[in-house]
Amino acid sequence: MSQEISKIPQATTKRLPLYYRFLQNFANAGKQRISSQELSEAMKIDSATIRRDFSYLGALGKKGYGYDVQDLLAFFRKTLDQDEATNVALIGVGNLGSAFLKYNFRRNHNTKIILAFDSNSPHEGEKISGIDTFHPDRIEEKIEEFGIELVILTVPSRSAQEVTDRLAKTSIKGILNFTPVRISVPDSIRVQTIDLSVELQTLIYQIKQS
Amino acid sequence: MSQEISKIPQATTKRLPLYYRFLQNFANAGKQRISSQELSEAMKIDSATIRRDFSYLGALGKKGYGYDVQDLLAFFRKTLDQDEATNVALIGVGNLGSAFLKYNFRRNHNTKIILAFDSNSPHEGEKISGIDTFHPDRIEEKIEEFGIELVILTVPSRSAQEVTDRLAKTSIKGILNFTPVRISVPDSIRVQTIDLSVELQTLIYQIKQS
Repeated sequence: MSQEISKIPQATTKRLPLYYRFLQNFANAGKQRISSQELSEAMKIDSATIRRDFSYLGALGKKGYGYDVQDLLAFFRKTLDQDEATNVALIGVGNLGSAFLKYNFRRNHNTKIILAFDSNSPHEGEKISGIDTFHPDRIEEKIEEFGIELVILTVPSRSAQEVTDRLAKTSIKGILNFTPVRISVPDSIRVQTIDLSVELQTLIYQIKQS
Repeated sequence: MSQEISKIPQATTKRLPLYYRFLQNFANAGKQRISSQELSEAMKIDSATIRRDFSYLGALGKKGYGYDVQDLLAFFRKTLDQDEATNVALIGVGNLGSAFLKYNFRRNHNTKIILAFDSNSPHEGEKISGIDTFHPDRIEEKIEEFGIELVILTVPSRSAQEVTDRLAKTSIKGILNFTPVRISVPDSIRVQTIDLSVELQTLIYQIKQS
């Protein structure tokens, strides 16, 4: 699997989340099958590119039928899921952070939050929802000790950049940012921001438009 | 403002969240200005379409300079933000739902969760984080009484479709779905799904690729 994946062009991998989102929209709209042409119109990506991307991924449409939406969705979910385990740390055990610790991505057997930080935690650490939680003073030290690759950031906005600057000194590769702050990171770190207020506003905007 | 917005073509409004996301990525990558050509290459939308979309929105680039990334971001945030208030209900006061009730989109003065449902709440209702919370038996009745337009769905997966079927009988127009279930809705309801596991997996996938 990992060998196959390494052959997929970078440009294609960048479109995967986009495909996934649009396919979800079609599924939500009750659509059962879809042609590359329809996807092309919705996504404004030319249909030859879509067919090529899908063929890299091993998904082949049937002539005159197109693609089965649920099959594609299942396929993308599987493709985005990696075999190799990833060690995740969470920073900021407030309301949202605490919900994530309790949830801890149970459906993803290969992704686990194994370390947390909170400014209310003691220097020597404590267990929260079964997870080792330390004071942020120990970020650099503990991130390396636990072999963390990815961080979920659920700190208050005012601390977001300061914490990010400390993370930039570690070997982490990605931040899932739930703060509304557009954090600055070095090239070695990839950031995915989920701004819940914006998601809500976008949906409201679409509702009011229709 | 609302008059101007009603002139924006539907196809453009559908691209707004997409623009917003890509602009965030560029901002996160430290980019300060951007040309329609660069956006075009990243998004695979032709640059004439981008310039037209932006001009509908009143955002004009400068020749030989392009667009200021932070200006555009601020602009999109403002555009996606509506003047009119929207009444929101939350269904499922578990870990995530409870975090949302406490957070309650404080930055959006025009969007508030004013009603909640949880299967552990009594029929006659109770207050959770200051919000009136009822047993789901009263969904249809209370949704109408409170004039709810939008629902945040944070129930367990097993209840997602059942709750959605009850919502389909009300006059709500949108669901922000945090369950991993692809819920089926009538055409009158728009669904936006945020699958936190998928967001995490996507980021991991991108990290492992680079």
